[in-house]
Amino acid sequence: MNHVLVRLRGFEKLTTIEEAKKTFFKRLEMDILENVKISLKEALNRVIAEDIIAGKDLPPFDRSAVDGYAVKAQSTFGVSQFNPKKLEIVNGPIIGENQAVEIWTGNPLPEGANAVIMLEYGRKINAKIVEVWKPVAPGDNVSKRGEDIRKGEIVVKAGTRLKPHHLGLLAALGFVAVKVLRKPRVAVLATGNELVEPGKTLTSEQVVEVNRIILSGLCQQLGCEAVDLGIVRDDLEEITSRIQKGLEIADIVITTGGTSVGIKDLVPEAVNKLGKPGVIVHGIAMRPAMPTALGIVQNKPIIVLSGNPVAAMIGFEVFAKPLILKMLQIPTLEIYALKAKLTRKVSSVLGRRSFLRVYAYMENGEFYASPVRVMGSSILSTMSRANGYIIIPENRGGLEAGENVTVYLFNYLGGKEDV
Amino acid sequence: MNHVLVRLRGFEKLTTIEEAKKTFFKRLEMDILENVKISLKEALNRVIAEDIIAGKDLPPFDRSAVDGYAVKAQSTFGVSQFNPKKLEIVNGPIIGENQAVEIWTGNPLPEGANAVIMLEYGRKINAKIVEVWKPVAPGDNVSKRGEDIRKGEIVVKAGTRLKPHHLGLLAALGFVAVKVLRKPRVAVLATGNELVEPGKTLTSEQVVEVNRIILSGLCQQLGCEAVDLGIVRDDLEEITSRIQKGLEIADIVITTGGTSVGIKDLVPEAVNKLGKPGVIVHGIAMRPAMPTALGIVQNKPIIVLSGNPVAAMIGFEVFAKPLILKMLQIPTLEIYALKAKLTRKVSSVLGRRSFLRVYAYMENGEFYASPVRVMGSSILSTMSRANGYIIIPENRGGLEAGENVTVYLFNYLGGKEDV
Repeated sequence: MNHVLVRLRGFEKLTTIEEAKKTFFKRLEMDILENVKISLKEALNRVIAEDIIAGKDLPPFDRSAVDGYAVKAQSTFGVSQFNPKKLEIVNGPIIGENQAVEIWTGNPLPEGANAVIMLEYGRKINAKIVEVWKPVAPGDNVSKRGEDIRKGEIVVKAGTRLKPHHLGLLAALGFVAVKVLRKPRVAVLATGNELVEPGKTLTSEQVVEVNRIILSGLCQQLGCEAVDLGIVRDDLEEITSRIQKGLEIADIVITTGGTSVGIKDLVPEAVNKLGKPGVIVHGIAMRPAMPTALGIVQNKPIIVLSGNPVAAMIGFEVFAKPLILKMLQIPTLEIYALKAKLTRKVSSVLGRRSFLRVYAYMENGEFYASPVRVMGSSILSTMSRANGYIIIPENRGGLEAGENVTVYLFNYLGGKEDV
Repeated sequence: MNHVLVRLRGFEKLTTIEEAKKTFFKRLEMDILENVKISLKEALNRVIAEDIIAGKDLPPFDRSAVDGYAVKAQSTFGVSQFNPKKLEIVNGPIIGENQAVEIWTGNPLPEGANAVIMLEYGRKINAKIVEVWKPVAPGDNVSKRGEDIRKGEIVVKAGTRLKPHHLGLLAALGFVAVKVLRKPRVAVLATGNELVEPGKTLTSEQVVEVNRIILSGLCQQLGCEAVDLGIVRDDLEEITSRIQKGLEIADIVITTGGTSVGIKDLVPEAVNKLGKPGVIVHGIAMRPAMPTALGIVQNKPIIVLSGNPVAAMIGFEVFAKPLILKMLQIPTLEIYALKAKLTRKVSSVLGRRSFLRVYAYMENGEFYASPVRVMGSSILSTMSRANGYIIIPENRGGLEAGENVTVYLFNYLGGKEDV
C-alpha cells in the first residue's frame, strides 16, 4: 500500500515545463516515421520528407510576362502619347532599334530584345507596323531566366508542412507526386468511473466524456491520425491493458484523467507497470495542468493529461504538440501569435507558469486581449469564448491592465463585437 | 471588332477594393447552402448551421471538481499542517461542522457541504475519521450548477467553424450529431494557350499550370470542395462553355488568366456572353491583381483572377475568401494578424493599394516583418519564403524601415533563422 500513501502525500516536487520537456525528449528515442509517396493533389498540409532541389532554372529562359511587343528598350526612349513611334514588326531576332516582335505571355524573348511593351500601349497599324507610346526600361515585363527559382536551390525544405503555394511551386518544377511522412497515429484514452459517452441519459454520478473528441481534433489539426481507445474505468488492470493496446497500434498514447495524487489516480502507476523507464516526470509547475505526467514505454511516448478538459488542452499544447512536431521533423513551432493590450488586471500564483485564456480582438487597427476567466480549469465554455492564451511567468503574481502581452492564438482573431 | 479595340485601350478606370466588394455583394443574391446532419466526430472545421441553445445547466448540479472530502468550509477555518483537525466521515448530508463526506470527481455535492478538500490534504486515520490540514473557502473545488453553461444560453452560434473545443462543448451537451452547412463547391478553371499540366515535357512556348492546385488548396483550407475545370485555351467558345459547365456543377466559379486587356484576354467577354449582369467590376486599384474581374451569371458569382500565381492568390484573399465566408454565413474575417516592425524600407505606387509579401518572425519576444520582394507578381517562390502580407495604403508611396505594420498571416510565424 506504499504507493497509495505516496500518492496521497501530493506532489512533493513540481518540475518546470522546460525541465520536463528537456528530460522527456532526451530519453525518448522514437522510430522515424516512414515516407509515403502521394499525389501532389493530395498533399495539402502533409509534411514533405525530403529537401526538394530545383533541377532547372525557372523560368528556363528569359520570357515575356505579358502579351505585347518584344523590343530593344532603347527603341522606346522618349516615346509618349504625344510622341508615338512606329516600329517594324518582324518574326526573327531583333537587330534594329526600330523593330518589334509580337509576343504572348510565356513566350521566350527573341534574341536581341530586352523588354516587352504591353499590348495596350501599342496599336497595330497593319501586319508590318505597330505604333507604341509607352517607353520601357531594359527588363520591363520580362521574367528573367532563373528569376523565380535557380537550378540547385532548395525550394522546399524537408519538414515543411505543404501549403497551397508550396504545391504550386512543386507543380511548377514538374512534380505530380511527392514523398511525405506517414501521419503519426495518436491513440487517445479517457479514464474515469464517472465518464460516459455523449448522448446517453446520465445518472447524477455520471459526466459526459469530452476529452477524446477534443484531443482527437487537436491531433487531426496537426496532421495526425487519431485512434480512439475509448473510456476505461479507474481500474489498474483495465487502464494498463488499454494503454498497452495503444502502444501496439499507435506512435503516441495520450490519456486523460487519473493523473493526480488521489486514490483513483492510477494512470502513472499503469504506465510504470508497462515497462522501463515508465513515468519520467509527474507534476509540472504550471496552472492549469499541474498533474500532467510524461512517460516512455517500449520507446513510445505516453502523455498523461489531466481529466479537466481545459487542463487537458493546455497540457496537449505544451507537451503533445511539440512532440508531434518533433515526430514530423517540423522545425518551427507552428504558432500564430501577436502582442496585445490586456484589457484588465489578472492575478496568478507565484512559482507556477499560468496559462490564461483570452479573447484577442482587433479594434481600430489595435489588438486587445480580454481575459475570459482567470480561475478554474474545468470550464469548457471558456475555451469557446477564448481564441488564445497568454502566459503569466512564474515570477509574476499577476499582470496589470494595459500591459502588453503575447497572445498565442488557437483560433482566428475576433472583432470587438464578438466579446 | 469594337470590343477588341476597347480591350486594347487598357483599363480606363480602376475601382477601389471596397467599391468593388460593395457593388459585387449588393448585386449577388446567392442561394443559401443546404444543411446536412453529420456525426459530431466528423464535424471538425465544418460550419454549424444553427444556434445551439443549452437545454440544461452544466454542471446540472453542484459537484465535486476533485477527489476528496466534502465539508462545510467553516469546519476548516484555522487548520494547518501544524494544527490539523479530525473530521467524522459520514455518508449522508453534512449536518455538523466536524463532518466530511468522501467524494469523487463529478459526484454531486452532498447536502450541507459547500467545499471539497482535496484527497492529498487529508489523511484517513480509520473508516470513520479523516485528519485534514488545509483550509478551504466556500466554493473551493466545487463546480457550481450552471457554472459552465446555463440552460437557455447560446453556446455555439450559427456560422461558427467548429474547432476541437466546440466539439467538446457539444458533446458535453449530449450531441452526437450536428447540422452543418454543405461544403460550398468551387470550380476552378485555368485559361491560357501556354499552359500545360505538371509532369509533361515542355516546349519553349509552354508553362506549367500551377494556379488550379494553389486555388483548390486555398478553397479546401476554407472548407470548400474544389472542382477541377481543367485548362482551356484562349478561345472564346471554349472558355464560355467551360465556365457554363462550372456554373452548372458549382456554387462559385474561379478562373485564372485572360483577364487583362490584351487580345487574348477573353474571360470577361465569356462571362458577359453567359448572361446578365455578367462582369460587374473589372480593373481594381490594387497591386498585384489589378486585372481582377468580378461577375455574376445565373445568380452565381464568378471570380476572374489574374494568371500570375501570386496575383491570383492575392485576388483570392481579397475577393474569393470573403465571398466563401459569406456563403458559409461566417461573420468573422478568419484572420491571423499581428503588429511587427518592418525591417527595411519599401516603396509602392500612389493610388494603388499594395499587398507586399513579408516573412514575419519572432525574435526575443518581438515581432519583425521582413519584406520578401517588392516588385513583381509572378514570382511564386516568394510565396514560399513569405508567411504573410502587409498592406500599403493608396496614399503612401512606401513605408520606412522600423515602421509598425499589421501583418496578415497565411502561414505560421517563423523564427529569425528561417529568413
